[in-house]
Amino acid sequence: MRDVAVIGVGMNRWGELWEKSHRDIWTEAALEALADAGVDRLDAMYVGCMSGGLFMGQEHLGALLADQLGMGPIPGTRVESACASGGLAFRHAYLAVASGEHDLVLATGLEKMTDVDGGAATYALSTAADQEYEGYHGITFPGLYAMMARVHMERYGTTRKQLAMVAVKNHLHGSMNPLAQFPGKVTAQQVMDSVLVADPIRILDCSPITDGAAAAVLAPVDLAKRLKKSPIVRVAASAAATDCIALHDRQDLAWLASTQRAAETAYGQARIGPSDLSFCEVHDCFTIAEVMVVEALGLMDKGQGGKGAESGFTALDGRIPVNPSGGLKSKGHPVGATGVAQVREAVLQLRGACGGRQVKNASRGLTQNMGGTGASTVIHIFERV
Amino acid sequence: MRDVAVIGVGMNRWGELWEKSHRDIWTEAALEALADAGVDRLDAMYVGCMSGGLFMGQEHLGALLADQLGMGPIPGTRVESACASGGLAFRHAYLAVASGEHDLVLATGLEKMTDVDGGAATYALSTAADQEYEGYHGITFPGLYAMMARVHMERYGTTRKQLAMVAVKNHLHGSMNPLAQFPGKVTAQQVMDSVLVADPIRILDCSPITDGAAAAVLAPVDLAKRLKKSPIVRVAASAAATDCIALHDRQDLAWLASTQRAAETAYGQARIGPSDLSFCEVHDCFTIAEVMVVEALGLMDKGQGGKGAESGFTALDGRIPVNPSGGLKSKGHPVGATGVAQVREAVLQLRGACGGRQVKNASRGLTQNMGGTGASTVIHIFERV
Repeated sequence: MRDVAVIGVGMNRWGELWEKSHRDIWTEAALEALADAGVDRLDAMYVGCMSGGLFMGQEHLGALLADQLGMGPIPGTRVESACASGGLAFRHAYLAVASGEHDLVLATGLEKMTDVDGGAATYALSTAADQEYEGYHGITFPGLYAMMARVHMERYGTTRKQLAMVAVKNHLHGSMNPLAQFPGKVTAQQVMDSVLVADPIRILDCSPITDGAAAAVLAPVDLAKRLKKSPIVRVAASAAATDCIALHDRQDLAWLASTQRAAETAYGQARIGPSDLSFCEVHDCFTIAEVMVVEALGLMDKGQGGKGAESGFTALDGRIPVNPSGGLKSKGHPVGATGVAQVREAVLQLRGACGGRQVKNASRGLTQNMGGTGASTVIHIFERV
Repeated sequence: MRDVAVIGVGMNRWGELWEKSHRDIWTEAALEALADAGVDRLDAMYVGCMSGGLFMGQEHLGALLADQLGMGPIPGTRVESACASGGLAFRHAYLAVASGEHDLVLATGLEKMTDVDGGAATYALSTAADQEYEGYHGITFPGLYAMMARVHMERYGTTRKQLAMVAVKNHLHGSMNPLAQFPGKVTAQQVMDSVLVADPIRILDCSPITDGAAAAVLAPVDLAKRLKKSPIVRVAASAAATDCIALHDRQDLAWLASTQRAAETAYGQARIGPSDLSFCEVHDCFTIAEVMVVEALGLMDKGQGGKGAESGFTALDGRIPVNPSGGLKSKGHPVGATGVAQVREAVLQLRGACGGRQVKNASRGLTQNMGGTGASTVIHIFERV
């Protein structure tokens, strides 16, 4: 397998973009990535999208978007793994380059979620869970994560305030991200006083419904060195894993086995451990998710994830900053786009191009993108070379 | 890249399977492929599915089905390219093995289409077209292919009876396929007298709405030789291409540019021409589609595709048999499964295991799987080694 670099990234301003179609949003991000890479041709493209059918009435996005970009007849492939669709699309773009099948490949993610009403969006999101055993009985995603949070709080003594501190930290980071959907800062008290969604999860514990896209251009490192000035950002690891989709089948409701498994594989590929990371972009779809992810990644001990944000360990100036971009919580969560936007943040951090939210001396970063309640996880590690 | 073989295939009996869930259907096919391969572990799996959201209210099928098979934590990836989803899933399973990323990979396809009513199914299928420029204005897939047929008939003199002969041939082949949804034979007169759907397309020109799944196990050829007796079936070529998604953007309504492009690439990889093929399995979603595909594959000259079935050129005992399985027309068309079922037929033909529908001296076969009106095409060539 060849060494692979990310040579360009792009993303539009995320939010409720009613005045733009899914094509417009995606094209903005894709063209920015191509311009950043300094290339005007591609050999293949991938798009991560969770539910084109339910959100937009449009499947066949690989072909449609290759056409939209004027890049036909290149192969266009849509990859889906619920909220991990973007990460898995990036992984397949990576494999396409690493294998030698293609040289210049565009990895993108897209979701246009606000053209349907809230009930339809909640239904569409529930198709990431086990519909026959979970969704059909009325449970929604805040409900599923609320059960995971309850177990974590009961077993490990994780507090309501510790969950709130994840939101406080990520909104603080997001306040320095000009593309974030909700860049406003929040206090722990505001989070704890916000509307209850599914006890103990409140509205300010939840990532939002978002329209958005993100894009990255991949190339072999050899080609990247000819095309780009240093620093070159290399993909040091790419791994994916699954877990039981329904919560009732899990051995442990308070443990993300797919994230642990993918992380083990990725650390092995990169020949590093979690303490070697300069920062992580992780899947904080709910505050409890980040608490559990930092444990599964080995950043904190099992059961101790609640202390991550509370102690400052995961703050921008902490030991290992988590979600310098603002995360899903502040930046927004257009589900299919999220995994690719994490890659964009990692690349910009490693280039030292993040302004106020720049992680000091960033040399190696990890992205963790997760589907459903953790039934799928995709992890990548990036390093400056 | 490593040489890759298909070491096991599976498929359930296709039809209106109201008594079975999508899990049941998929599992039948997957377990048959594993048993045929003689393996009980996998390193990764892929599933092609067009619209899990609209047909089944279930996305995240990669994780769900890896779990269903008891194969977690292996990576499970869903690939979508409308009706070419199965072929594209197979291609990514192939790339995963060829690249060295994984050794034993399951490629599957699935669609459960009959749990929604006819109107909802027609809407779901229309999401393979350009919804904003085609679907929202009321056009359906029979309507789109009817326009392509009109141009072909007007320009090349293709006759109504020539279209009917595609259905006659494929139902004759399908009458020898015990897993076909509609194994009954039809006459040209029956096709031409059947209910009009979108002039000139009649109901017996159309492939049906189907529940079904198909599966294949891939491995490096070196491993395959240790696991299986000869003949080993090798993947000699894998190629994908796209075209403009909306018909109004095409240069030629009567030409399938994505199929031509993918075929050119595939022939180059396999170092053969169309005349070297023993048989083809192609995407006859409508009779006119097969007419146009045999031209784009180079089996017949441009404009002469209508003569393929009429002259016997594409019959089971013809020069190059097309759709010995019965094709989408008779076997059924559970859209995400179709591309993988084509692979199954190719493998069984090359093993000489097709009974009454066996192609004599089959040594090399091509599968062509197409999305929408040809916005995407995936082609594979298989050979006995």
